[in-house]
Amino acid sequence: MSYLNNPRAIEAQSRAIIAARLGALGLGAGERDIVTRIIHATGDLEYARLVVIHPRLVAAATAALRGGADIITDIEMVRQGINSSMLARGGGQVICAIREREVAAAAAARGVTRAMAAMEFLAPRMTGAVVAIGNAPTALFRLLELMAAGRAAPAAIIGTPVGFVGAAEAKAALEKADVPFITVRGTRGGSTVAVAAVNALLHLTWDEEGDD
Amino acid sequence: MSYLNNPRAIEAQSRAIIAARLGALGLGAGERDIVTRIIHATGDLEYARLVVIHPRLVAAATAALRGGADIITDIEMVRQGINSSMLARGGGQVICAIREREVAAAAAARGVTRAMAAMEFLAPRMTGAVVAIGNAPTALFRLLELMAAGRAAPAAIIGTPVGFVGAAEAKAALEKADVPFITVRGTRGGSTVAVAAVNALLHLTWDEEGDD
Repeated sequence: MSYLNNPRAIEAQSRAIIAARLGALGLGAGERDIVTRIIHATGDLEYARLVVIHPRLVAAATAALRGGADIITDIEMVRQGINSSMLARGGGQVICAIREREVAAAAAARGVTRAMAAMEFLAPRMTGAVVAIGNAPTALFRLLELMAAGRAAPAAIIGTPVGFVGAAEAKAALEKADVPFITVRGTRGGSTVAVAAVNALLHLTWDEEGDD
Repeated sequence: MSYLNNPRAIEAQSRAIIAARLGALGLGAGERDIVTRIIHATGDLEYARLVVIHPRLVAAATAALRGGADIITDIEMVRQGINSSMLARGGGQVICAIREREVAAAAAARGVTRAMAAMEFLAPRMTGAVVAIGNAPTALFRLLELMAAGRAAPAAIIGTPVGFVGAAEAKAALEKADVPFITVRGTRGGSTVAVAAVNALLHLTWDEEGDD
């Protein structure tokens, strides 16, 4: 079979195709990189219309990451996809608590999701961190409650939980919160979307293009 | 804020909402479970129209998994998302070679993607295995070439690579190959989709519903 197999050539061609289909979006360069990477990762041009980026997001998130902020994720798939070696350049690490014994016990005891209990568990470590929620609407709802109660103060939130139960509502609440954010309107989102947004920010932080 | 936070209640409500929106798809129960789980994981009802499942897929994949087949993935994010404890009940494990030193060296030497080199590296372990490709079109192209050359013989392929460079073409080639498959027509797909399909198959194998 004949197909393009050089990673740099594939990346360049993908970016060119997406750029041609996107046309003028009226976005800044940083925002455009984020949207492009999300579309590259999902194959879904609808994201051009659905992604919402807070005007201070790129500046706030890249400053935090350059300064060594950790990235806190809701699930292990999101942790796994993040470019941890780029993150380590600033000194940060990726943290996910969903498999902590205490988190599982707290979730079971109260009959709530583990992702939600994991946000409570990590709240003390969130000050100045970037929080990336790719899967669980309950994690985003709980995070916003913790912030409103003064118990968590992240530098930025990548909030792209997915599905038909609470996701659109949690993301609408994020849009109203006083924090720089990236989100996706409606039911779509997921781990792949959160990872693409985070890795776009890491590339913006270190001002590099790349093939992951 | 008021929101549903019990994992079983969320799962049940999500399934009910998706079932109501899907209506009659003319699918068997197993196929319907796979499509439902993909839509649950992406929040995107378009998948009802885009997912293609080979008529022998459910029987072939569940028999393989029950018999201890391994699952081979293209990238670590897919490995991470698969329910490895359900897989272990049959005796199988999840295998991904993209971070093997030999794979990185082979890819660099030849200027090809690491995902593609990883398929070559794992070909001897693919006999009777389930291969799940969520990200890289080149991995799927190379796998089909290895099969045509008699160098790989998986029991089933979950092939949902994503993007605008080769993904639709690789998946169209999969539809023509002589192997049971799950795929997604067009540019969409991704790790989340591959993971959802694999976990649906694991639940079908052990005849259980569940909340992951």
